[in-house]
Amino acid sequence: MHSIDWYREEFVQYLSEKVKTKEPANLYDPMIYILGLGGKRVRPVLVLMAAEIFGSDPKKALDSALAIEIFHNFSLVHDDIMDDAPLRRGKKTVHEKWDVNTGILSGDAMLIKAYQLFENYEGETFRELAKLFSKTAIEVCEGQQYDMNFETREDVTIQEYLKMIEYKTAVLVGASLQMGAIVAGASEENKKRIYEYGRLLGIAFQLQDDYLDAFGDPETFGKQVGGDIIENKKTFLYLTTLDTAAAKVALQLEHLYSINPPDAGAKVETVKSLFESSGAAELTRREIEKYTEKAFQVLEELEISEEKKALLRNFGQGLMDREV
Amino acid sequence: MHSIDWYREEFVQYLSEKVKTKEPANLYDPMIYILGLGGKRVRPVLVLMAAEIFGSDPKKALDSALAIEIFHNFSLVHDDIMDDAPLRRGKKTVHEKWDVNTGILSGDAMLIKAYQLFENYEGETFRELAKLFSKTAIEVCEGQQYDMNFETREDVTIQEYLKMIEYKTAVLVGASLQMGAIVAGASEENKKRIYEYGRLLGIAFQLQDDYLDAFGDPETFGKQVGGDIIENKKTFLYLTTLDTAAAKVALQLEHLYSINPPDAGAKVETVKSLFESSGAAELTRREIEKYTEKAFQVLEELEISEEKKALLRNFGQGLMDREV
Repeated sequence: MHSIDWYREEFVQYLSEKVKTKEPANLYDPMIYILGLGGKRVRPVLVLMAAEIFGSDPKKALDSALAIEIFHNFSLVHDDIMDDAPLRRGKKTVHEKWDVNTGILSGDAMLIKAYQLFENYEGETFRELAKLFSKTAIEVCEGQQYDMNFETREDVTIQEYLKMIEYKTAVLVGASLQMGAIVAGASEENKKRIYEYGRLLGIAFQLQDDYLDAFGDPETFGKQVGGDIIENKKTFLYLTTLDTAAAKVALQLEHLYSINPPDAGAKVETVKSLFESSGAAELTRREIEKYTEKAFQVLEELEISEEKKALLRNFGQGLMDREV
Repeated sequence: MHSIDWYREEFVQYLSEKVKTKEPANLYDPMIYILGLGGKRVRPVLVLMAAEIFGSDPKKALDSALAIEIFHNFSLVHDDIMDDAPLRRGKKTVHEKWDVNTGILSGDAMLIKAYQLFENYEGETFRELAKLFSKTAIEVCEGQQYDMNFETREDVTIQEYLKMIEYKTAVLVGASLQMGAIVAGASEENKKRIYEYGRLLGIAFQLQDDYLDAFGDPETFGKQVGGDIIENKKTFLYLTTLDTAAAKVALQLEHLYSINPPDAGAKVETVKSLFESSGAAELTRREIEKYTEKAFQVLEELEISEEKKALLRNFGQGLMDREV
């Protein structure tokens, strides 16, 4: 088995070989730009790792890994337009560097390019990959739509929120692992379980992201701590507080989420204290733990060697410790 | 063989059965809305007709026909955002009825849904359809990008213009016919030729569209006659005039294309007279004729009965006579 660094380096090398500009340049340059912004390449690493775990040469999974990464970046380009985001990984977003039209159209081309990469697989493998890809891609769109709908809805339930993060984030983690398994010709049972592992881990990761957005260390958390609170984002912490706190506290939180003070420091601190005092912070920590444990339980059921299970567990643990 | 009306009715019936709303509604409602705006359904009719011509039950091609129609409508939704168009077939465009974000995201979902429809075909058929679809879809994106680039470019060549309309419009006509042939298991030669017929006919149709935009009968031409001239659109007529007219006339035309008078009537009439006097109108008529004849020549090479060739020819003629 290779190391995570090896998977990442192989992938980045492959990416630089395969994603080249061509005419019309302003359709393809944004694709190269966004794919070149870096990132941890978690999804492609998972594709390659899963392929090797189920007995394939990981290089055979490079096209699937690239498809997943291009799709992920397509969704970033279009989401950044919808969220009117100026920056992505500290650099200008595509629609800021070019314009909205270029962002829309080059995003469309990326989605199609992702499908084309599966053409390098034969017969049933092609079919299985494309089918899983379409199912996942449509769920990601549904997740994004729910996320946008939640902005103006005042009656979002915790269950709805969990479904939103599952669709918007977790299913692509599951699909990444399952694609590696498909390329390697894994059994139906193993394909299902590896997907489930990724899905549960993805939910745990996203819940933790919500948690760290409020309670993370500004030194190590990549984004602005308190950003979700400033933007009045209905996260798991917020919804759980409304659900568990006394009516008076819930009203106070709703009020805080209706104002946008120029200096947000006091608001962030007050909201955080409500998250803690209501018990929602503790409930969130437990929910993260629950999904992480569920993921590791599913891992045990995989029909692979203990060493390989350990690799998947370590990667998952590293992801949750934000060390991958 | 069935009639064109039968294909269209079968298709519209299938569309209404298959395209249903679901949650999240604001992702799927725009899809139903745009697909319900009507139109002549030329592309799906071509898919079904080609399938029957090559010996298949046309109903077997319904999923391919629906994929093509959904893709075509996806491109309309995103193009309308890019062109800031308020109306489509006399009704509000999706981004006007909802908003830009809804237009972007429901467009994305439509593109994915189109791919999913091919999953109803087995093995090699699925692969061939998805591959042709991706190739065509990326060309349509490239065509749209060229079209947008041309707006600010002053050195567009006639050759570039022809490539743009080929990509933006004609390849999808070719692909529609070829998809029917793929579903029917036609020979490689026949698949190539039927594509070529559609491609050539598509170019002829688009050139004629340009021509009628200036010289069409306001009573029968669907759009505002003179619209391209008012919008200073670099059509075949415009580029050919610049290419053939004396330097002084070319300068006059370029000047007219740099102004936007509130009452455009005089400008439209002067530009039309330059199109005629320079000989560009005649050259355009000949070019339309050339592509139409080329299309009918390719038709002759198809290995199908004379009756079936006549059906395809009649459909093409009807399209050019704007009677289909």
